[in-house]
Amino acid sequence: MGDEFDVIVVGAGPAGENVADRVVRGGLTAAVVEPRLAGGECSYWACVPSKALLRPVDLVAEAGRVPGLSMGPVDVGAVLARRDEAVSHYDDAGQVRWVEGVPAEFVRGRGRLDGARRVRVSAPDGSERVLTARHAVVLATGSTAAVPPVPGLREAAPWTSHEVTAATSVPERLTVIGGGVVACEMAQAMHGLGARQTTVLVRGDRLLDRMEPFASELLAESFADAGIEVRTHTEAVRVERPEPGGKVTVHLPDGPPIESDELLVATGRVPATIGIGLETIGLPGKGTVEVDDSMRATAVEDGWLYAVGDVNGRALLTHMGKYQARLCGDVIAARAKGERDDLPSLRDTADAYGPPQVVFTDPQICAVGRTEAAARAAGFQVRAVEYDLGSVTGAYLLGDGYRGRAKMVVDEERRVPLGVTFAGPGVAELLHSATIAVTGEVPLDRLWHAVPAFPTVSEVWLRLLEAYGL
Amino acid sequence: MGDEFDVIVVGAGPAGENVADRVVRGGLTAAVVEPRLAGGECSYWACVPSKALLRPVDLVAEAGRVPGLSMGPVDVGAVLARRDEAVSHYDDAGQVRWVEGVPAEFVRGRGRLDGARRVRVSAPDGSERVLTARHAVVLATGSTAAVPPVPGLREAAPWTSHEVTAATSVPERLTVIGGGVVACEMAQAMHGLGARQTTVLVRGDRLLDRMEPFASELLAESFADAGIEVRTHTEAVRVERPEPGGKVTVHLPDGPPIESDELLVATGRVPATIGIGLETIGLPGKGTVEVDDSMRATAVEDGWLYAVGDVNGRALLTHMGKYQARLCGDVIAARAKGERDDLPSLRDTADAYGPPQVVFTDPQICAVGRTEAAARAAGFQVRAVEYDLGSVTGAYLLGDGYRGRAKMVVDEERRVPLGVTFAGPGVAELLHSATIAVTGEVPLDRLWHAVPAFPTVSEVWLRLLEAYGL
Repeated sequence: MGDEFDVIVVGAGPAGENVADRVVRGGLTAAVVEPRLAGGECSYWACVPSKALLRPVDLVAEAGRVPGLSMGPVDVGAVLARRDEAVSHYDDAGQVRWVEGVPAEFVRGRGRLDGARRVRVSAPDGSERVLTARHAVVLATGSTAAVPPVPGLREAAPWTSHEVTAATSVPERLTVIGGGVVACEMAQAMHGLGARQTTVLVRGDRLLDRMEPFASELLAESFADAGIEVRTHTEAVRVERPEPGGKVTVHLPDGPPIESDELLVATGRVPATIGIGLETIGLPGKGTVEVDDSMRATAVEDGWLYAVGDVNGRALLTHMGKYQARLCGDVIAARAKGERDDLPSLRDTADAYGPPQVVFTDPQICAVGRTEAAARAAGFQVRAVEYDLGSVTGAYLLGDGYRGRAKMVVDEERRVPLGVTFAGPGVAELLHSATIAVTGEVPLDRLWHAVPAFPTVSEVWLRLLEAYGL
Repeated sequence: MGDEFDVIVVGAGPAGENVADRVVRGGLTAAVVEPRLAGGECSYWACVPSKALLRPVDLVAEAGRVPGLSMGPVDVGAVLARRDEAVSHYDDAGQVRWVEGVPAEFVRGRGRLDGARRVRVSAPDGSERVLTARHAVVLATGSTAAVPPVPGLREAAPWTSHEVTAATSVPERLTVIGGGVVACEMAQAMHGLGARQTTVLVRGDRLLDRMEPFASELLAESFADAGIEVRTHTEAVRVERPEPGGKVTVHLPDGPPIESDELLVATGRVPATIGIGLETIGLPGKGTVEVDDSMRATAVEDGWLYAVGDVNGRALLTHMGKYQARLCGDVIAARAKGERDDLPSLRDTADAYGPPQVVFTDPQICAVGRTEAAARAAGFQVRAVEYDLGSVTGAYLLGDGYRGRAKMVVDEERRVPLGVTFAGPGVAELLHSATIAVTGEVPLDRLWHAVPAFPTVSEVWLRLLEAYGL
């Protein structure tokens, strides 16, 4: 009896926690299974600590552009201490209390599927417990850092997002493999906190290759100014680290190898689906779990399995995992109670527009919806307009030499924005205006009456609409 | 011939400049008359210099909340120099070039109406010139600081927004009369730049009395923490300043008088309509010029007179003046060409929603649409939700002890937001999301799918919608 729940959630990251919250609000019972810390990667080894590390670096850059201010050297110990506080000293007691307050049962242990509607949990003390779900099992196991099969790389025990965000000191020399969000953010954080040689190795031709090209260029300029070296069209072909934790040498396809004190691998994520018992219900034992727009696994009979967050591969972003979790929890409750399950609030609408994302570098890079290239590839009749953010008075007032740019991609047929990208200092909070415009499909003729306050950076909206011809 | 134009604009502030720009784009000719500096109050003695003064003060506050950072004393000379640069050293050559590049004729001099469609310009050299408008005259003369009839006040030659934003040094002791935007921003700027005794005298019961009460409270707390004294329910009853520019004494209804080195009066604005010849066309020679939603003066026959910006009293905000100017310029062009003049883009829609406004204090205060009280007074069926910004992860990550709050006022009948207020550090750019939601009348059920990126302050949108019950 104590082992039967309406809903069993496997994984207590933000997505798993939110599913539990919503199903319980819907009148169901829930258990949440987690082998590590309740709160998940985001709270301890990703978004939260990375932003705690980046915030002081960002402010130093901001202050450096404002005449009359002088910043003393950053006290790295204090920054790391603030990071430790932000991650609750890697203690999840508060998060566990939150889950229990939902109320849902928090079950510490490794959960894996054991046939339909059954989850076998191996507790840290070795004991086992089998939970049964009356309505649904929700997979929310997240993802882990990918480590590419480069000879010597795994043996070198490189940092991933996990270790770099938990760093207890800053390496003098850091090599970063990868050019995505984690690579860019952490290269800048470590460099800003004192690394004096930071080298970023990018396989493609630019940083942040899913963003509009101008955003990559602005970030590359900023890296160059800061002394962060970016090498494109290259990759690690062999890694050597004779002493554990000692100097590490990365060999490239050509040129001399790079020696550094630490190595960060940030080349993407793999869904955490290995060893969670997918085989026991006839699914492949790895890869993403494909779901429909109600987050229900498409390949499972009777529709009792759901998957939210990184594990379904839709968008590897905390906020999208939480969004999916909310609608998933609601749809499970609706179905359990025999209520309508096809309301607009019960379907993933946001992912299809293109999820919002902020990169907390200097300049900040953020985007929502489709890039121009993606919109064209999807067959839209597209017109794109751009504007130099440095020409916006509100941006100029933020500091000397403000550099930034904005772009809006418009669906010419309906005259609604399909995508917006902002790159520049202090634009992170500007993104949500674009998210509402894109997701709300607010027509340009209506946006024309949404007047940006002067003198804010947001005035770029006016400039973009004027550039479009309004 | 050279003195006849399709459109004559009186006043070259942002509103006047934008009218000229839009009518010329529409194929008409224009002249812009300005006795002082092209660019207007905003560019030299209001928004722009005030933000240049506030930016370093704001960053010092931001850095003070981030462990590991230490800011040296502010170099006030450098701040003032940056302010001077921001106001182009009070030289309008660039703005004049901009007007001429429209192209429109820039006429330096004091313009006043001289009967229908005629503007008499008195040039600085004493010469006169009479301009004739084929289609329209647009008044864009702005406003001036109100100085209340307190005995001795005018004789004391107090600072207004004009002088305080142009300050060449910071007074040791400053008394501020007023509790609105200018009073709050400038009290904080001067205090942050070194005034050691700053006293704000507020007639009513709170600062920023048109904002939601919680915003006033948060600002008052911040002022108290910073050592800025706010006295409510009081006012100056007599002012003494025996020596010009010397010590100034403000007498209150009760208690000892306040002695300080400078006095700032910030008690509102009066429309700049005195002496601009309104009597020559049968209008009262002072007060605002009432206009319809196309900015056409309602009391003038044949519809040739328009008024945009502060002078029409709709919203004393640069961005709203510019907005009015755009639609005014477009509607004049449409009417001149006999085109449709009733398109949605040709009517002031935004002012009726409640214009957006940002107060650049620490905390920043911003709002758009109606406050709860205003919405109820207007007869809406209202529900309001609030959320503590300090509980938003993205806000917590900005600094220790982050204090802020957000409120959304919802029209229950249509489930659209009627008003949104944010108060907290770093929320200025967040406002435009609310402006789009309010002006776009985006339903809450649609906003639910506009997912805020984690971890930004914008996540408060999610919290507000959850608080509402989504």
